[in-house]
Amino acid sequence: MHYERDPHEIYRQSWETVRAEVRLAHLPSDLHEVAIRMVHACGMTDVPNRLAWSDDVAAAARGALASGAPILCDAEMVASGIVRARLPAGNDVICTLNDPAVAPLAAEIGNTRSAAAVRLWRDRLAGAVVVIGNAPTALFHLLELMDEGWPRPAAIIGLPVGFVGAAESKAALCADPRGVPFITLRGRRGGSAMAAAAVNALAAGLEAPR
Amino acid sequence: MHYERDPHEIYRQSWETVRAEVRLAHLPSDLHEVAIRMVHACGMTDVPNRLAWSDDVAAAARGALASGAPILCDAEMVASGIVRARLPAGNDVICTLNDPAVAPLAAEIGNTRSAAAVRLWRDRLAGAVVVIGNAPTALFHLLELMDEGWPRPAAIIGLPVGFVGAAESKAALCADPRGVPFITLRGRRGGSAMAAAAVNALAAGLEAPR
Repeated sequence: MHYERDPHEIYRQSWETVRAEVRLAHLPSDLHEVAIRMVHACGMTDVPNRLAWSDDVAAAARGALASGAPILCDAEMVASGIVRARLPAGNDVICTLNDPAVAPLAAEIGNTRSAAAVRLWRDRLAGAVVVIGNAPTALFHLLELMDEGWPRPAAIIGLPVGFVGAAESKAALCADPRGVPFITLRGRRGGSAMAAAAVNALAAGLEAPR
Repeated sequence: MHYERDPHEIYRQSWETVRAEVRLAHLPSDLHEVAIRMVHACGMTDVPNRLAWSDDVAAAARGALASGAPILCDAEMVASGIVRARLPAGNDVICTLNDPAVAPLAAEIGNTRSAAAVRLWRDRLAGAVVVIGNAPTALFHLLELMDEGWPRPAAIIGLPVGFVGAAESKAALCADPRGVPFITLRGRRGGSAMAAAAVNALAAGLEAPR
């Protein structure tokens, strides 16, 4: 069968195609690679058109990662997609969703397991990079906890996906990010692959292809 | 903040929205839940319009899972998204991509690491459920190996994503699935979340929401 087998050539052609099709001019230059990687992760070149961000998010996230900040993820798939070898400081990648404390905590606070899992981030939250690639309730609850005075992360990569609360939670982040640098994708789309791709781009720029 | 916190209500509203917006009538009834879960995983209701499948794929995959077949995944993110507790027979979920044999094997065969990883499936491939949610070269190489006489899996869930080979590898699967039941999504879209969602739907029908 005829197909491209050379990983470097796959990489080159992929980026060439993405760059030929995406609109990036509206983005800060330090988010171009982030946008390109997000597009590459989902196969949809219109993703940059729906991004929303604060201009300081790339610098804030890169600075936090360089100084060893942990990466707090709402889902195991997000954590699984982050390329550990590319992290600049052996950063911890943490997902608390399957902690045994989560289910009783969810019942106690009357919220989802994903929201309860955010509460277990408390001791690591200050200066962390938060990556939400699944659950709208995790993003909503993080905003609530910041309003209660919880520590601020260095940056929020807010990419929950779906039909109930995803668009709304991301709109809430855009409307009032509580002073925290952020990037998000308006609407229903998002997900763990895009979220991990954003982290990988922020951590290290372009990396070797799959 | 006002948002839905009850997981059962999130689940109900999500499925209600998806069902109100998707077209399913062209699909076999035993693929409706698969399509709905794939839509739910990515937030895009047009996904069913681009699905391609063999009519026996749901029965073949469910039968294989019920009889304890392993699930062979091309990427750790796919494996990470499969809900173990819903598998009917404690099925093994296997990803060989990070096996130490893969890098030298890739160099030897002149292909990607993802393609080389498929070769490590050989002893488990007969009757397995194959799930490709990332790499076009994994799907291309699997088709090549079947042409060389390698064992046939019970079903192929073929959902590689991206700009080089994704659409082409899925078109090759549709054009000649080598007698293996399959489901795929034409075009560039796909990915680990959709792939894991398809497995979760096939394994257990609807499950508790996040």
